Amino acid sequence: MQLRWYSYAMRIPEQSQPSLAISDDVACSIERSLMVLGERWSPLILRELHYGARRFADIRDRLGIASNLLSKRLKALVDAGVVMTAPYRDEGSRVRLEYRLTEPGVQALIVLGALQQWGDRYLPRQAGPSVVRTRRGTDEELQVGFVTEGGALVSLDEVQMRPTLA
Amino acid sequence: MQLRWYSYAMRIPEQSQPSLAISDDVACSIERSLMVLGERWSPLILRELHYGARRFADIRDRLGIASNLLSKRLKALVDAGVVMTAPYRDEGSRVRLEYRLTEPGVQALIVLGALQQWGDRYLPRQAGPSVVRTRRGTDEELQVGFVTEGGALVSLDEVQMRPTLA
Repeated sequence: MQLRWYSYAMRIPEQSQPSLAISDDVACSIERSLMVLGERWSPLILRELHYGARRFADIRDRLGIASNLLSKRLKALVDAGVVMTAPYRDEGSRVRLEYRLTEPGVQALIVLGALQQWGDRYLPRQAGPSVVRTRRGTDEELQVGFVTEGGALVSLDEVQMRPTLA
Repeated sequence: MQLRWYSYAMRIPEQSQPSLAISDDVACSIERSLMVLGERWSPLILRELHYGARRFADIRDRLGIASNLLSKRLKALVDAGVVMTAPYRDEGSRVRLEYRLTEPGVQALIVLGALQQWGDRYLPRQAGPSVVRTRRGTDEELQVGFVTEGGALVSLDEVQMRPTLA
C-alpha cells in the first residue's frame, strides 16, 4: 500500500500538484479527506466513475447536475489528483476529454462504501438501499469494516484510535 | 447487525425522532450519511467521543471550538440519533448533561476510519498521521476495507457496486 502510494505520488509532475493544497495545519486526516471527498456532489461523481461512466455528458445525465457545477467539481477532483483526464474523439467530432479515477480515486471506494453502509443502516429509505455492494460476479454482499494485517474482520470494540504526537 | 439496528430504532420514542429528517428523495446513502456525518466539526466531535471525551468542556477544549458552535453541532448529532445525553452532577455543582455515542455513533467509527486512512495515504502531512488505528492492547495496525460475510478482506477490484431499482 505504501509502495503503491509512493508510485502514485511520484507520477505527478511538480507543476500538476494539487491546486487544492491542504495546509499541514489541518492535522486531522478525517477533515483533510472531507475537504476533497465531502464536497456536495463529489462523492456522487466518484460513484458514477466507479460504475464506469467516463464522459461528461453521461455523468451529467446520470446525476441530473448542472453542467457548470459538474465542470467545477470535476476540475477540483482533477486538481486534487483523484480523477484524471484522457482525450478521446468520436467519429467526426472534435477531441474531448474523458474522466477516469486515479489510484486515490479507486481507493476512495472504501470511503464511499463506508458512508453507504452507514446510511443504509441508520438513515434507511422506505424504498431500501439504492446500491448494494457485492463480490464481483456473485450475490455475496460485502461489508466495510476494520481488518487485521492478516485480512480478518475485527469487531468495533477491539478497535483503538490512538492519537500520535504528530 | 440488523438486529442491533432494530433494537436501537425501537428505543427511540416517537416524539424524539430526528428533527434532521432526511427526505426519501435523497436516494443515495452516501449523501444521506454526509448530511449527518459530513458537516464541519461533526466528525471531529464524534472522534473525541470515540476517544472517551464525554463532557462539553472537554470536547470544547480538545477541539478548540467555540462553545456556541459546539452546542449547535452536538444538538444536531443528538437530533440525528448519533449522540445521546445523560445527566451527571459534580460535587457541589448543578446537574449537567454529558454526551455519549449511540449505536449508530459507535458504527460511524468505520466511516471515520475510512476517511482517516484515505487522508493518511493520499493527503499526507509532513508530520505524519495524527491518529493510528490499532487492535486494542496491541500495536497491530488495522485497515478499513471490504470484507466477505465470512469476514475476509476482499481486494477493491473484486468489489462491485450495483444500483438497485430502489
